[in-house]
Amino acid sequence: MTTDYRKMWSDLGIDLKQHDTLLNALSLIYEEIYLSQRNRPKGMEFFDFVVGDIHGIRVQELRQHAINGGKVVATYCVFVPEEIVWAVDAIPVGLCAGTQFSVPIAEEVLPRNTCALIKSSFGFKLGRICPYVQTSHLIVGETTCDGKKKMFEILAQYHPVHVMEVPNKKTQLSRDLWLGEVIAFKEIIEKLSGNKVTADKLAQATKLVNERRRALQRLYNTRKAQPVPISGKDALLVTQVSFYDDVARCIQQVNVLCDEVESRVAAGDGVFPSNTPRVLISGSPMAIPNWKLHHILETAGAAVVCEESCTGTRYFSDLVPEDGGTVEKQLKNIADRYLQIHCACFTPNEERLDDIVKLAREYQVDGVVHYNLQFCHTYANEAVKVERVLAKEGIPLLRIETDYSDEDVGQLRARIDAFLEMIRR
Amino acid sequence: MTTDYRKMWSDLGIDLKQHDTLLNALSLIYEEIYLSQRNRPKGMEFFDFVVGDIHGIRVQELRQHAINGGKVVATYCVFVPEEIVWAVDAIPVGLCAGTQFSVPIAEEVLPRNTCALIKSSFGFKLGRICPYVQTSHLIVGETTCDGKKKMFEILAQYHPVHVMEVPNKKTQLSRDLWLGEVIAFKEIIEKLSGNKVTADKLAQATKLVNERRRALQRLYNTRKAQPVPISGKDALLVTQVSFYDDVARCIQQVNVLCDEVESRVAAGDGVFPSNTPRVLISGSPMAIPNWKLHHILETAGAAVVCEESCTGTRYFSDLVPEDGGTVEKQLKNIADRYLQIHCACFTPNEERLDDIVKLAREYQVDGVVHYNLQFCHTYANEAVKVERVLAKEGIPLLRIETDYSDEDVGQLRARIDAFLEMIRR
Repeated sequence: MTTDYRKMWSDLGIDLKQHDTLLNALSLIYEEIYLSQRNRPKGMEFFDFVVGDIHGIRVQELRQHAINGGKVVATYCVFVPEEIVWAVDAIPVGLCAGTQFSVPIAEEVLPRNTCALIKSSFGFKLGRICPYVQTSHLIVGETTCDGKKKMFEILAQYHPVHVMEVPNKKTQLSRDLWLGEVIAFKEIIEKLSGNKVTADKLAQATKLVNERRRALQRLYNTRKAQPVPISGKDALLVTQVSFYDDVARCIQQVNVLCDEVESRVAAGDGVFPSNTPRVLISGSPMAIPNWKLHHILETAGAAVVCEESCTGTRYFSDLVPEDGGTVEKQLKNIADRYLQIHCACFTPNEERLDDIVKLAREYQVDGVVHYNLQFCHTYANEAVKVERVLAKEGIPLLRIETDYSDEDVGQLRARIDAFLEMIRR
Repeated sequence: MTTDYRKMWSDLGIDLKQHDTLLNALSLIYEEIYLSQRNRPKGMEFFDFVVGDIHGIRVQELRQHAINGGKVVATYCVFVPEEIVWAVDAIPVGLCAGTQFSVPIAEEVLPRNTCALIKSSFGFKLGRICPYVQTSHLIVGETTCDGKKKMFEILAQYHPVHVMEVPNKKTQLSRDLWLGEVIAFKEIIEKLSGNKVTADKLAQATKLVNERRRALQRLYNTRKAQPVPISGKDALLVTQVSFYDDVARCIQQVNVLCDEVESRVAAGDGVFPSNTPRVLISGSPMAIPNWKLHHILETAGAAVVCEESCTGTRYFSDLVPEDGGTVEKQLKNIADRYLQIHCACFTPNEERLDDIVKLAREYQVDGVVHYNLQFCHTYANEAVKVERVLAKEGIPLLRIETDYSDEDVGQLRARIDAFLEMIRR
């Protein structure tokens, strides 16, 4: 760590002592979980560097952007249309947090029976240990779950917050409501940045964000190969990093990685033996450094080949049409695209069940692990339906409910070992 | 119990063995909690009878209504506009359940980390122990919380369900959405019943439901007196019964009770000594037979003088305007009135904080108990804000999070004793 960073963190109001502890812990975890892997693609070096420097260069870039008069917009969810943020030369950055470290800090205020992702994120702000939130001019929340919806009200007592209303159903009126929220968001972002969203700028931003989506689709596509050319942990990391790294750089680096991984596929090279059980993980998102489930699965002898989640396919599967037109028309396209996300916040959300079955086939999986952050009611309830559908399809399922702590690791290992034993070919 | 009822229950598909156990348990609990009270108003005899006959006459009435071609519409929430149901000569009946008895049954399907109210209600259907749900032709759900929103999807695999979308915010577009949901509900209810909602019928139904609201307002108004003329337990029971009893009969009986209780106020008669600490309970609803918190408080020497909840003031504080007009105009009035409910499902919901402070003053309370059903995220998060506001106002607060089990009763008693010690004048 250079001293420059310490000065910057201090200027951002970071609690340096707590922050040092966090970064040291992260470094050790990363070494154990990531750097211990064998036969990793060389293209992962960039992502290793990004994590190693997690609160460094990228924060400096955002900070410089702010010093130059630009705005930084922090988000918690794949429903916030980042195209609009880029279109006014502001920078969006994903804030979801995946560390147990900040959970006890959050629990001083938030109800304990709240999912770890919400507590971890809130704890980052309360404990002043996240330079991304400190750099941001506005946090944009949404109403996708009760826990976040109400947490944002409390967070607003510490930081500027705007909440977008994601509807519960997908009727025409719900769609009208959502389009209205997207338009209102555009106006808020224009006001924040002092720049107007023009048709050209929006079309350009749409192309850029789509380009990142295509790069991630390309990466995920290689994971359909047998043997799988990249570990689930590495693929997850790429998605996680893309939430906060510079979009153009991210696209380039993901494509460099894809070139390499596609050669592996062509050569029939894999990171795991070809008889390794292939697993699809479906459910709650996994924010950095929440690699718990992937790590347990892949050290137990499985390969995670796909994530049906907001840090997986839900993040990049759908593109926004690039046929341009007026700002109004483009906003309509954006609103439509985002409402296609098969999030458990919708009722009903049968499309997600179809997705899981489709992905299970496409990625040739031997079993599905339904991952549920504890106290997340929407995914916990959908698990009941996922179980019924997969039973009908004859696809083995393991339901996991957990948090960010290490307390249940032993129990999870035992359950996962038993599951892998069952699905091993 | 007459044998007539057993035949009826059997025809309704009730699991008679389980049902016997439930009714016997209820009878014992009621004797202990209610009939042990001293100096109760004579007008409570009607409500004692209703509970003693809980699955008897009223179910028979609904059953007869159904046999005559009428429809029964079951609801879980104060957001479902019952005026529309009455207007087509259908009968609405509240289904929320407050017993631990059906919780383990629900846990065979639903996630365990679900609030007791949802589990208890769902268990009633799954276990076939509630003749009300068995009699109903349609269950109308809503999207006021993640737990219910997603439970209704599962419930729909066992019973006809329609879900109304309650919005998350109160913008103009959210209001349009809600009005659309109310209009769609009218159409669904018309189709179900085969009857049209006419302006006259709707105006008549509105007057009727308002009349019950006024009767409950009248009852609550007497609780502002010092000493309080009716126990919190008795007042809560009246509200609970009004969710499923015949509306005209209920109005009459509540008013008879009010006549008596108002005389007590005039005479300065109370059910508790005049130095009894007065408590406002605010938070999650309490469905029959969830009398746990009231019982602990009132046997510990407090008087519960008001409930800011959906089985309290939120249920009846606002009237629908009775100025009639076209069906469209009346539906707009209905939609507006229901969206005024200060439910924690809305973000923000600052009006509830104002309500709590206002009610605390009006009912001259010595303290507030914030009641939170475990795993209810919306009220648990609002408790944080309630705590901050009440601290500023100098009103003592006790935050309780619990379920329907008896496991924590000892701990609750200890905390409540300490709280009462502190607030005693």
